[in-house]
Amino acid sequence: MTAGPRAAQPAKIAVLGSGSWGTTFAKVLADASADTAVMLWSRRPEVAAEITADHRNSPYLGDTRLPGNVSASADVREVLAGSDLVVLAVPAQTLRAQLPAWRPFLPADAVVVSLMKGLEVGTDARMSEVIAEELALPADRIAVVSGPNLAMEIAREEPTASVVACPDHGTATWIAAACTSSYFRPYTSTDVIGVEIGGIVKNVIALAVGICEGRRMGDNTKASVITRGLAETTRLAVALGGRPETMAGLAGMGDLIATCSSALSRNHTAGHLLGQGLTLDQVTVRMNQTAEGIKSAQAVLDSAMKLGVDMPITESVVAVLQGRLSVNDLGPRLLARNLKPEGDSAP
Amino acid sequence: MTAGPRAAQPAKIAVLGSGSWGTTFAKVLADASADTAVMLWSRRPEVAAEITADHRNSPYLGDTRLPGNVSASADVREVLAGSDLVVLAVPAQTLRAQLPAWRPFLPADAVVVSLMKGLEVGTDARMSEVIAEELALPADRIAVVSGPNLAMEIAREEPTASVVACPDHGTATWIAAACTSSYFRPYTSTDVIGVEIGGIVKNVIALAVGICEGRRMGDNTKASVITRGLAETTRLAVALGGRPETMAGLAGMGDLIATCSSALSRNHTAGHLLGQGLTLDQVTVRMNQTAEGIKSAQAVLDSAMKLGVDMPITESVVAVLQGRLSVNDLGPRLLARNLKPEGDSAP
Repeated sequence: MTAGPRAAQPAKIAVLGSGSWGTTFAKVLADASADTAVMLWSRRPEVAAEITADHRNSPYLGDTRLPGNVSASADVREVLAGSDLVVLAVPAQTLRAQLPAWRPFLPADAVVVSLMKGLEVGTDARMSEVIAEELALPADRIAVVSGPNLAMEIAREEPTASVVACPDHGTATWIAAACTSSYFRPYTSTDVIGVEIGGIVKNVIALAVGICEGRRMGDNTKASVITRGLAETTRLAVALGGRPETMAGLAGMGDLIATCSSALSRNHTAGHLLGQGLTLDQVTVRMNQTAEGIKSAQAVLDSAMKLGVDMPITESVVAVLQGRLSVNDLGPRLLARNLKPEGDSAP
Repeated sequence: MTAGPRAAQPAKIAVLGSGSWGTTFAKVLADASADTAVMLWSRRPEVAAEITADHRNSPYLGDTRLPGNVSASADVREVLAGSDLVVLAVPAQTLRAQLPAWRPFLPADAVVVSLMKGLEVGTDARMSEVIAEELALPADRIAVVSGPNLAMEIAREEPTASVVACPDHGTATWIAAACTSSYFRPYTSTDVIGVEIGGIVKNVIALAVGICEGRRMGDNTKASVITRGLAETTRLAVALGGRPETMAGLAGMGDLIATCSSALSRNHTAGHLLGQGLTLDQVTVRMNQTAEGIKSAQAVLDSAMKLGVDMPITESVVAVLQGRLSVNDLGPRLLARNLKPEGDSAP
């Protein structure tokens, strides 16, 4: 399925998007191979200039020093030229609009990797589907990377594991080798759907957990919401063609736990503020941005309803976001079900 | 399978063991039904006296007020007399030695419930197995209760879900009804093995997570260790005859996450102190007791080795406890595996 033999390491890698995760992943790629040129595309020339001149991206990563083989440009044509591997790390809801302008400059055999976690509002499309449609690429040239990957911890070189998924196992292995550093350990998978759904729905579950925390509920409640949250995520992933074992792994359970545990997660923090009684508008102002889970929640629920999948936590989060359910009622509603066997298959 | 029709609610319930979980569960049972007499057995007469006279167990639950239908005695014969339901909540490693003295006073049709989480050192027996052997009871009169159940949170009446497991589904449902209160929601299961193994191995995994925290590793690492910890717990449970879906539920994943998240968990705290460089003896002195995971870890590993189950995290924890592995090397050892597909079934 692959386009002939590839070099052991890509000679040049493009990373489009210089937010905290895109920049951190560029650092991982550059640390993985000193012989590879890693070039970031930044929408804002001043960010590109700081990266190239000072080897820092201070608005996102503070004092973190980027390796010498990382540079940046605001000219996407320059960034894409000669790249074997193209990593996309722009806001999920803006992706489709940007791809047509980039398509002409994509090298013929390049593999495209998505770091993005969201379902497109309106179409319910996963990011790999948006990429396939807009760049007219076959599935075996599109991969995704996802896992328990809080960017700031990786930027500090704390040990982290992740998953690289591509329908073509050889391509997944090639990408994994290109991002293996002393502090970043990627595993491979061929289950793109499962890996993407894990990364999307965890943001919605993190909102629910944050709301419970904001209402001062304890670790028992939070652990129950996380556990049932993974169960409903798994139901959706399987209905879409993903595999249950993916959801039990780093890109499902691992990512969900990291996001729901961490004060660094935007979705978790947004939920916490909602739970404390702030309105959605107040949360957006306070955080200077809308958390991705807030955008994706309705698309996740739409997708579930089309497939007849029961997602009570997602449904409750959407009801809170739309002002139809009070944050006071969310926790009790999630726990107050009639006594019954746990799971669908029990007697 | 059950011994004839039962009353909707037990008239009297015995709880043997008045530590924090036994006392808290007595409160749950008493809050579930004001018509039920709940009687605690305490080894120490002064603890029994405080519970009966002041409705408090201050050494374990501080100012928490116990309901009026809770009393206590140091005379096990008095406590067991007339009890339909007998709940056991003593230290796991002391259970077998105590049962012969209790056996003559056990009412003929009583159902026995285990709240204990440990594998017996030397025999690798689960608590329900020890009960079956020493009380000569059939499996359908033995149940277990386990889940994301930090006792102090339940004592504060924070909303909590749990699992009641018994091979006889009617008995599980009867027990679940007897412990359903406004803040405690039990689900039922017939998978006693899975529920017990989840409650045991999570203490070992919590030690590993605590050690990582003590070494100042971040949420990415912790989430990976928790995820892989559940995977190895599931492998052991399934090899013993438990069900994978139990491990993905409240008594598996839920309990593991609550234990690994909470500062209230003794095993988590013990791991944290080990990670900070204290010796095992120093940890035991500091905590005034040995965490159950420290006692059960070797028995879990023995069990796994007999069955040919791979449990790398448990193996590493045992090596740390035996002084064969430095806490500095634990985290890197858990993450530093060769690049490979995640899970056993991936290509």
